[in-house]
Amino acid sequence: MAIGLTDVLPSLHAVDGVSWGVAAAGLKKIGGADVALMALEPGSHCVAVYTQNAFCAAPVVIAKRHATFSSEIRYLLINSGNANAGTGAQGLNDAMACCQSVAEYADCSAEQVLPFSTGVIGEPLPVVKVAAALPQAFESLNPLGWENAANAIMTTDTVPKAISKQVEFAGNMVTVTGIAKGSGMIHPNMATMLAYVATDASVAKSLLRRCLDRAIKSSFNCITVDGDTSTNDACVLVATAKAGVHFEDESDAGFGEFQLAIVEVCEFLAQAIIRDAEGATKLMTLNVTGGKTEEECRKVADAVALSPLVKTAFFASDPNWGRILAAVGRAGIENLDINNITIHLGDVCIVRDGGRDIAYTEEAGQAVMDGEEITVTIDLKRGKSVLRLWSCDFSYDYVKINAEYRT
Amino acid sequence: MAIGLTDVLPSLHAVDGVSWGVAAAGLKKIGGADVALMALEPGSHCVAVYTQNAFCAAPVVIAKRHATFSSEIRYLLINSGNANAGTGAQGLNDAMACCQSVAEYADCSAEQVLPFSTGVIGEPLPVVKVAAALPQAFESLNPLGWENAANAIMTTDTVPKAISKQVEFAGNMVTVTGIAKGSGMIHPNMATMLAYVATDASVAKSLLRRCLDRAIKSSFNCITVDGDTSTNDACVLVATAKAGVHFEDESDAGFGEFQLAIVEVCEFLAQAIIRDAEGATKLMTLNVTGGKTEEECRKVADAVALSPLVKTAFFASDPNWGRILAAVGRAGIENLDINNITIHLGDVCIVRDGGRDIAYTEEAGQAVMDGEEITVTIDLKRGKSVLRLWSCDFSYDYVKINAEYRT
Repeated sequence: MAIGLTDVLPSLHAVDGVSWGVAAAGLKKIGGADVALMALEPGSHCVAVYTQNAFCAAPVVIAKRHATFSSEIRYLLINSGNANAGTGAQGLNDAMACCQSVAEYADCSAEQVLPFSTGVIGEPLPVVKVAAALPQAFESLNPLGWENAANAIMTTDTVPKAISKQVEFAGNMVTVTGIAKGSGMIHPNMATMLAYVATDASVAKSLLRRCLDRAIKSSFNCITVDGDTSTNDACVLVATAKAGVHFEDESDAGFGEFQLAIVEVCEFLAQAIIRDAEGATKLMTLNVTGGKTEEECRKVADAVALSPLVKTAFFASDPNWGRILAAVGRAGIENLDINNITIHLGDVCIVRDGGRDIAYTEEAGQAVMDGEEITVTIDLKRGKSVLRLWSCDFSYDYVKINAEYRT
Repeated sequence: MAIGLTDVLPSLHAVDGVSWGVAAAGLKKIGGADVALMALEPGSHCVAVYTQNAFCAAPVVIAKRHATFSSEIRYLLINSGNANAGTGAQGLNDAMACCQSVAEYADCSAEQVLPFSTGVIGEPLPVVKVAAALPQAFESLNPLGWENAANAIMTTDTVPKAISKQVEFAGNMVTVTGIAKGSGMIHPNMATMLAYVATDASVAKSLLRRCLDRAIKSSFNCITVDGDTSTNDACVLVATAKAGVHFEDESDAGFGEFQLAIVEVCEFLAQAIIRDAEGATKLMTLNVTGGKTEEECRKVADAVALSPLVKTAFFASDPNWGRILAAVGRAGIENLDINNITIHLGDVCIVRDGGRDIAYTEEAGQAVMDGEEITVTIDLKRGKSVLRLWSCDFSYDYVKINAEYRT
């Protein structure tokens, strides 16, 4: 179902210092593993970004609290099938209870455990079931457990999402491996998506934080399915300091290359989420160029990517440039002169100076739209800022999946 | 198809000083009348509001220009089937040519004619066909032509939309009659909708303008189908000064009642557009209360009404309060405390203090959601501002209609 992805993952390299265990707690209706445990060896640094939705789930509240008060995170406990969101004070107690259960099995405190949940909102988390699954999760801890974890955290995803990169620095091999889940409620600032990326490099904690922020910017903050952001989203970056490479500062030799590897892993995972978006049949890459600011490029990209009329036209493989131009026009850009705008579908110029390009033919536009992966480039011609956003079309299946999710 | 509307219109009163003629110019694929001509007797005042989309259609540009430079508008020419949008300089020439054709038949200047178009974007307007249809339009001019006009301006509408009100002022009967079209691309600030409202009262022009602005505020600016605003929208209010009632100032006796009649006509027409929205099966009335400002109430209402996840849940009659709360959470309200929020579905309290109400039962919520007309009341409990917005659900048919519109 996913555009250009299958359920065969690329080969994933273990990250020294990280192991994954999984277990079936019976939280997902379809059965299978729904609990994943990520164990970090002492000396690891762990940074994360979370949803900015004011309605954030209990595990997000607890994870933020634990990350603040604990000097060293040792375990990440993730469950799918239940979001533990909209569950009030009980939800907070439940998330804390899960951390406590992990702490009891391991030699650590509850504050050294970060909880994550994804799934249905508004149902109490069955903590007894989660606790009962922990022995199996601990027993199965394995440095090669990335693929199992990628599968265990899936909800409406149709394929697991994972990638691995290796870069050599002065004879030392550094590995970056990441997994993600998510296919609906995706929008900038983290939505129903979870992503876990780890490297065996040693990175100063403040530098690791900046490294994550930069990677998020062009990856998870530049994808949107439906404009809905979720209550539970998080992206975690771990550095275990096991490889013989240390980055203290951005000016350190090789850091640029290392940062790039993190960015590439995040961009791959972010794009994979869109490729597997609920009901998606087309991957839309929106390049907005010539903006006065990045902010106005984002406004235009959002307006186009979220327009149900544009999205249904993409579903129909219809080169309906009028809908794209109408979306640009209502994006709220001050003093926008629509008569300067140029729009390309792939390499085909469809709009020039605000109207249909004279050389444009319906056949040329149709040929681009018939593809599964379509790039739309919108040149505002008023500045030097650019933005790239990945989105997808709106199909019958999007409605079907979201109308029937709870039933 | 439309929720609570049929194609049998209520009885419409003629407005002294206004006649409508229609003709079939062959612009609509399905055939039938697609040109409507509204003739105003001398002495009428005419005010209008237009789309705020930066990509506005040629007829909007010309109508604004004519309204500015002409002291008295005599004709409104409306065509459906072609929006004359995204048509560049040729489009402007075509819109002017249509006005010129009307002027040649009538004893007026081209500047006394306002052009309006609705339909497909990006195709040249067949001006020769429009001109050829004008004799029939002029011949059929009739004070009772409102219903014919309501039908002629339809595009994807499934039913015509019209309403009439009469109010007596000191023995003088004043009539307000209005028609509208529109069912997709509907969003605040005028979208693919056109509305024409006329009264036989005499109203000072500046007062008529304020009267329209107020009526728009709670009607056409408080409906949304998909967040897409169109290139062509307009709402026109005409006062013919034929009834023996004159309003010079807001403090004039009876003006409040007159203003209310205009508001009621506009609200009826605005709601009718939502009832007939593309693919809609549910009318959603969103009441946001307790906001600090009306602006933040609107942000919340927009976020909920435009959330594809909320809209598909409504389509499924699913009392999925988590999605509503998640949409409220991402509305961008500063320092919003989600734990104060109360949400009612109809009379049923579903969320209290940010979580599921203890007394809530799935059966009670389901009973509300099974209805065709559903009121959602969201109390932010942080101020005294309120806003009411009408929207609808997202169905398979919405995707079908918009994926197949051009094919």
